[in-house]
Amino acid sequence: MTQPRFDAEFAQKFDTLLRWRRDVRHFAPDPLPERDMAELLEQAALSPSVGHSQPWRFVRLRSAALRDTLAHHVDAENLRAAQRYAGEARHDDYLALKLHGIREAPELLAVFCDEQASAGHGLGIATMPEMLRYSCVGAIQTLWLAARIRGIGLGWVSILDPHAVGVMLDVPDHWTLIAMLCIGYPQEASDTPELEQKGWQAREPLADRLFER
Amino acid sequence: MTQPRFDAEFAQKFDTLLRWRRDVRHFAPDPLPERDMAELLEQAALSPSVGHSQPWRFVRLRSAALRDTLAHHVDAENLRAAQRYAGEARHDDYLALKLHGIREAPELLAVFCDEQASAGHGLGIATMPEMLRYSCVGAIQTLWLAARIRGIGLGWVSILDPHAVGVMLDVPDHWTLIAMLCIGYPQEASDTPELEQKGWQAREPLADRLFER
Repeated sequence: MTQPRFDAEFAQKFDTLLRWRRDVRHFAPDPLPERDMAELLEQAALSPSVGHSQPWRFVRLRSAALRDTLAHHVDAENLRAAQRYAGEARHDDYLALKLHGIREAPELLAVFCDEQASAGHGLGIATMPEMLRYSCVGAIQTLWLAARIRGIGLGWVSILDPHAVGVMLDVPDHWTLIAMLCIGYPQEASDTPELEQKGWQAREPLADRLFER
Repeated sequence: MTQPRFDAEFAQKFDTLLRWRRDVRHFAPDPLPERDMAELLEQAALSPSVGHSQPWRFVRLRSAALRDTLAHHVDAENLRAAQRYAGEARHDDYLALKLHGIREAPELLAVFCDEQASAGHGLGIATMPEMLRYSCVGAIQTLWLAARIRGIGLGWVSILDPHAVGVMLDVPDHWTLIAMLCIGYPQEASDTPELEQKGWQAREPLADRLFER
């Protein structure tokens, strides 16, 4: 098979994709085509994994009762997280943010890492066992971009107790929750992160993050 | 600004990109254009980060002495990791694998996570502080794809002691090493992972990794 070339037009469009990928918290109610969901998962699974271990485990939430339990759990954790800003002007700003779309998103997808994945035979994790988890994160970033190409938005919810969610979803003990993802069509598109629009945090200069040795 | 549309041709080419992205260990000696390195870092920094914290810190290794020290460290850790297969047929297979291009790659880039990033004001990390590290991993996956578009290969080396490498590079104590990346033009292109070509680990069915609740 001849290797592909990626031309300037594709490179430009890829840059546009990166600029218009958002963490989405406001979803339209429309369901996602089943074929799109299947393709997103297939593309995510093309991501690199340490030792080719493919440690990702994807759990689609179908139960309305589980969704409801999860939403209450996240709201409770969110109120607790807000206490970190108690007495600051930021406290009200924080409480005004909408940080998840768990109740509205047509799809909820939990991504777990199998810490005992047999595939890969332990290659590359002797000193950095976290590489299994990092492999799952790479797959999520792939899925995020693949979704945006289709006009589909994704929101990553991290204001939750990962162990509690594992118990809630009745997964094996050696699976670590990496992400709870809300997936659906976004109510709006933008090239500016919502946290930037709302004045929470601006983009900072990349130059401050570059070093040499 | 009108939101962009991504057509079927772009979607198809993006799928090809995912299929031809490899973890590269065999590099040509040619240096990378400085402009490409700058663009890769700029695109990586368009990745999502928890609370818009932008916790990635990129350290380019310029010192030949540091490269040499690092190469010896990784080789030593690799011999130690090989012991996990002692007495198995896999032992010889493991030792026959080339697992890094630290000596040859024109660019070495260490990616650290600033665990005390002030940006983001702690949003989203109350229960999952690892989200800062996961944000850095997402940026690496973006950089990986951006590199492949330009015909540039990337290899992620994880057979090392992350703390020791932090000390070696004299970074602050609250920076966690996420990845040591070898970057350069690959000697070969393929749509099959090297570990699969060498018979270490095949791609497994995605269906075995999909669950519902």
